[in-house]
Amino acid sequence: MLQPIMTELSAMRIVLASGSPRRKDVLNNIGIKFDIVPSTFEENLDKSSFNSAVEYAKETALGKAIEVAQRLQGANEPDLVIAADTVVTLEDRIFEKPKDKKDAFQMLSHLSGRTHCVNTGMALITRRKGSADESNGPFHVTQFHETTEVTLGDLSPEVIQGYVDTGEPLDKAGGYGIQELGGTLVKGITGDYFNVVGLPVHNFCCHLLTLFGHPVFKKEQST
Amino acid sequence: MLQPIMTELSAMRIVLASGSPRRKDVLNNIGIKFDIVPSTFEENLDKSSFNSAVEYAKETALGKAIEVAQRLQGANEPDLVIAADTVVTLEDRIFEKPKDKKDAFQMLSHLSGRTHCVNTGMALITRRKGSADESNGPFHVTQFHETTEVTLGDLSPEVIQGYVDTGEPLDKAGGYGIQELGGTLVKGITGDYFNVVGLPVHNFCCHLLTLFGHPVFKKEQST
Repeated sequence: MLQPIMTELSAMRIVLASGSPRRKDVLNNIGIKFDIVPSTFEENLDKSSFNSAVEYAKETALGKAIEVAQRLQGANEPDLVIAADTVVTLEDRIFEKPKDKKDAFQMLSHLSGRTHCVNTGMALITRRKGSADESNGPFHVTQFHETTEVTLGDLSPEVIQGYVDTGEPLDKAGGYGIQELGGTLVKGITGDYFNVVGLPVHNFCCHLLTLFGHPVFKKEQST
Repeated sequence: MLQPIMTELSAMRIVLASGSPRRKDVLNNIGIKFDIVPSTFEENLDKSSFNSAVEYAKETALGKAIEVAQRLQGANEPDLVIAADTVVTLEDRIFEKPKDKKDAFQMLSHLSGRTHCVNTGMALITRRKGSADESNGPFHVTQFHETTEVTLGDLSPEVIQGYVDTGEPLDKAGGYGIQELGGTLVKGITGDYFNVVGLPVHNFCCHLLTLFGHPVFKKEQST
C-alpha cells in the first residue's frame, strides 16, 4: 500500500522506537527500511488517570516517540520516529506479561473461551525541515490507535498447560503469541491481525500516506 | 495447542498434499514435522453442481487427499494426509488467481472497500492399522471447513496499481497475499487469520486432538 510514497520513504531516516522483534518483523514485512532505537521512556504512567486503556497506550506510545526523537536531535536526526504501545484488556482488566508459568496458566485460563481486546496506541513523529509547521514546535505528532478483538478457543487445562510449558507465553502481554504456537489457541479475531502481533499496518499505512499528501482513503482515518 | 499429542505426532509420517509454500509455512509454524507430496488431483470439479463454494472446496480437498493417500499406499505409507482447498468469494462470485496484472487490478478494485469470504475446505485422511475401523475401507476421512471474512480498505486506483506492480498478486486467489505486502491492504478480518493464509490452524488442531482421543473442546467442532 505504500508503493506511491516508497521513493520518499527510502530517502528518509526512519526510526522504530521499540526493541520488540515482532514490531520489527511487521515493519520489515511491508518493505520499509528503518533503524531500531528502543525508547528508554519509563512505562509508568498512572493507569487510573486515563479514561481508557486506549488513552493510556496512546500516551505511552507518545512518551516513547518523544524520548527517542529528543535524544536523536542533531546530526543524522530521524525524519520519522515510530512508537507503539500495546495493552491487552478484558472487561477493564489489563493483562500484562505473565510473571511466571503459574501466572501464565491463570491468565490463559481466564482468557480461554472469551473475547478480549488488543489495543495498540501509535505515535508518529515527523520533522519537515524548513516547512511552515516548524513554528508549531520541533515535532509534528500523529497519534492513533487500533483495537482488535481476539477470541480464544475453549481450551482444556491440559492444552493450556502444554502451551505454557513451551515457555512461549512468558514475554508476551496476555500470555500468548498469535504469530507463533499461540496462533493455534485463537479461534478467531475481529480487526487487524497485525495489530495483535504488535503494529496495526493498515491504519499505519493510511496515516503515512496522508502525511505524505496522498489522502486516498475515504473512510479509514480513525484516531 | 498440539502439545498433548506431540509425542504421537512425532512418531507418525505426516504428508501435506499441497505444494503451497504458505500452507507449508503455517504447518511449520505450529511445530509439526511433515513431508510434502503435492496432489495431482485435477481441480476441475463442476462448481455448478455444488450448493456452495464451501462444499466445492471440501470436495476438492478430499479429492487431493485421496489421490495422495492412494498413490502412497504400500511401504512407508503415511499415517496422516492433510489436504486443503481455498476459494475466495464475494456475493456468489468466485475469485481465482488473476490471469495478469490487468485482471489483478480489476479484481482488487472490485474487492476494495468490501468484505469478501475466504473459505478453506479441509480433508484429513488417517489410517489406524489393525484398529476396528479398518472394516470401513482403507481410509478414515475427516472433513471440515473454515470461513474468514476479509475487509479491504477503500483503496485508491494509485494504491491498487502500486501493489499490482509489485507482482505479488499474480499467484494468489483474490489477488493479494495477506502475509506479505498485501497485509497492508486489509482493514480487518473476522475469523481465523491463518485460514486466509491457507490453513485454518485452530480448527485443524481441534480436529487432530479429537482424532487422537483428546476431545477437549466443547464448542469448536464445526463441519
